Amino acid sequence: MGEERIGIGLIGLGTVGTGVVQILQSASSAMRRKDCAFEVVRVAVRDASIKRQVQLADGAIGTDPAAVIHDDNVQVVVELTGAAPAYGWIKEALSAGKDVVTANKAVIAEHGDELFALAQDKGGDLLFEAAVAGGIPIIRSLRSGLVANRVESLYGILNGTTNYMMTRMTRGEGDYDEILAEAQAKGYAEPDPTMDVSGMDAAQKLAILGRIAFHATGTGSDLFCEGIENIQSSDIEAARELGYTIKLLAIAKHTADGKVEARVHPAMVPSESLLANIHDEFNAIEIVGSAVGNQVFYGAGAGQMPTASAVVSDLVELAQRRNTGATTAIGDMVLDDEAAPFADIEDSIIRYFLRMRVADRPGVLAQITQLLATDEISIASVIQKERDLEGGTVQLIIVTHEARERSMRKAVAAIDALDFTEGATRLIRMEDL
Amino acid sequence: MGEERIGIGLIGLGTVGTGVVQILQSASSAMRRKDCAFEVVRVAVRDASIKRQVQLADGAIGTDPAAVIHDDNVQVVVELTGAAPAYGWIKEALSAGKDVVTANKAVIAEHGDELFALAQDKGGDLLFEAAVAGGIPIIRSLRSGLVANRVESLYGILNGTTNYMMTRMTRGEGDYDEILAEAQAKGYAEPDPTMDVSGMDAAQKLAILGRIAFHATGTGSDLFCEGIENIQSSDIEAARELGYTIKLLAIAKHTADGKVEARVHPAMVPSESLLANIHDEFNAIEIVGSAVGNQVFYGAGAGQMPTASAVVSDLVELAQRRNTGATTAIGDMVLDDEAAPFADIEDSIIRYFLRMRVADRPGVLAQITQLLATDEISIASVIQKERDLEGGTVQLIIVTHEARERSMRKAVAAIDALDFTEGATRLIRMEDL
Repeated sequence: MGEERIGIGLIGLGTVGTGVVQILQSASSAMRRKDCAFEVVRVAVRDASIKRQVQLADGAIGTDPAAVIHDDNVQVVVELTGAAPAYGWIKEALSAGKDVVTANKAVIAEHGDELFALAQDKGGDLLFEAAVAGGIPIIRSLRSGLVANRVESLYGILNGTTNYMMTRMTRGEGDYDEILAEAQAKGYAEPDPTMDVSGMDAAQKLAILGRIAFHATGTGSDLFCEGIENIQSSDIEAARELGYTIKLLAIAKHTADGKVEARVHPAMVPSESLLANIHDEFNAIEIVGSAVGNQVFYGAGAGQMPTASAVVSDLVELAQRRNTGATTAIGDMVLDDEAAPFADIEDSIIRYFLRMRVADRPGVLAQITQLLATDEISIASVIQKERDLEGGTVQLIIVTHEARERSMRKAVAAIDALDFTEGATRLIRMEDL
Repeated sequence: MGEERIGIGLIGLGTVGTGVVQILQSASSAMRRKDCAFEVVRVAVRDASIKRQVQLADGAIGTDPAAVIHDDNVQVVVELTGAAPAYGWIKEALSAGKDVVTANKAVIAEHGDELFALAQDKGGDLLFEAAVAGGIPIIRSLRSGLVANRVESLYGILNGTTNYMMTRMTRGEGDYDEILAEAQAKGYAEPDPTMDVSGMDAAQKLAILGRIAFHATGTGSDLFCEGIENIQSSDIEAARELGYTIKLLAIAKHTADGKVEARVHPAMVPSESLLANIHDEFNAIEIVGSAVGNQVFYGAGAGQMPTASAVVSDLVELAQRRNTGATTAIGDMVLDDEAAPFADIEDSIIRYFLRMRVADRPGVLAQITQLLATDEISIASVIQKERDLEGGTVQLIIVTHEARERSMRKAVAAIDALDFTEGATRLIRMEDL
């Protein structure tokens, strides 16, 4: 057991980087009991002239990531920029034989295959607990605590910004545009919110979890992703009347033919379910394991200190490996021949909520139900809502039993092509958890 | 990375032991990707003539634990008896230089000081993920994932049997005695249910979590423990009217004077809180960490496969250490000079629900409130319930603001000594989470 200090090289000293330095400088007693001692040796930032909230050694802060990576006193490179060149820096650091810790979900989701293999090849490690669900130790729990299980399914609320927005909309505090504008004003949503509201942020996180829990191969772009941009307050109201709440869910499970069904989309979940009651910016992940059964992890999915906590937990793991003389243990992150691709969303079997506006005249419901029947879609319930006096149309809500996505898309296209339907049918998937 | 098989010696082949063998024999793909291979070399059971549900090598099953411990092909001793001599077997195995994995919370809670020190001294390890909250990886998460945090507080539902009973009582499915009898008939409660219903099982688990999360020294007997034996359906009903649900909670937090407040007792928690909604035999642990904020872990707290899953996760960790050439890493489990003792419950500051039956005559409420005021107990609300026509008494419910337990005990003793109070005052602590 050593008291050797581990040299940390930091790329990025923004909110999270500052939090990491603060935690390292005021090490928890648990860290001290593990004989972990760190020294932030060198830092690269975009603008070295900015006054920082943390005290570092004279000359430690520069603007050149390469100087951090290649500093002989740096054993672990911590990448916290979220910037596009991060991929190159991480690759360079691993190639130079350094261990790397990152919070960068995009790089791990998109370049995991290459980077994990490179780390293994070089005998280094690449840890990324902070990349998914912030301070929740979900990566560790999947790689270690639940290792004896075959993960049967995973349902996650993985994006704090959209969960905050959906929570406020569910509380009736505004429509999508208003809530988004407020979230941006408060800094909860980015000036360009696309990554969050499109679901792509959650999809990248799901790709990472899919690799660990399902040994799935593929990036965030390879799985089905639909955002919350089109969710209207009236959808939320209709869901509520049925006893459901709308959440942006990330879902993964095995298919019968050995693939992995993985999808991110708004989903109606029973209002009394645990996931429906994850409010505000919190994250939660529900897993069904072959041995443990149902398990839920809940906590802050983002934010300075939760994210920094996850980064430091990775640093402590690396320190402990050095203290105990261990080599890297990245083998489980490298995909092998058994790796499964993501399935086509059109093969998924899901329950659906459909909302359409149709002319108020005889035979309409018969034609629509006939179209659904043709595609073997069985109806669970039909609600005909208020008549729009001016337009002469009525709102029709149809909840289906489980049906194949391909059939549903075909049926909806046919329904929308009917001359008595007005506008496009709203389709929201339902998950009974 | 090795493909060396690790020799497992099993003491106990009951429900959990059988589950462990099954998981090891049908290793998950995640285990295989970690290059973990195990062989159950030798097993000790009480009665070797019983037919087992798992297939083991000829002659592997005997009745002598010492033969398991001292078998040269056994590297890891897995103790799963829950029996009294387990302490001696674990000690003997560690002394013999073996790594030990156990699900035995009593041994860890009562003899942790000695056993962790012994393991460290011998360069072995003692892992016990299964001892608390079954399949939930809470030990790992506290020791590793949340290592960067000072844990500020911990609230847990740690005993499945009592949570199952409280859930059924809350649903109005019977009184304490009926529900207990049914739970025993179904095998959810032991023939002698004392450990569960007295809260001692939860107290032992809390002592273990207290060691990890608060660096607290002390056994289950050193912390305050009150069971659910006296909870009546009328308490649950009164709680419901106030918007609360009664749960058997395990609570730990820091005190201002450097001790650790740790207590197990029935507590009223807000009915909309997450912990109030942990039903049936499930466990949950809510932690507030200095960096991560609120975090909740939820899952099955007992049962064959969840417990076996936790045992195997420990085995995989040991295998991975061997594969990577690491020495043991038990330092954080050994208490040092900074270890904090449990505080006296009488110093705790808590909110209280009081229910008493008093004579229906003028001045009664004035005297009771005066007694509370004398002990500086401030009242939040008073509800006078229905009059008992025959006895001429009324039920009085008082909810207090935060008060010191010592003052509350004094006040309740004084109230119970009044000549117009009938029977003892019911006192239930309240936690607003």
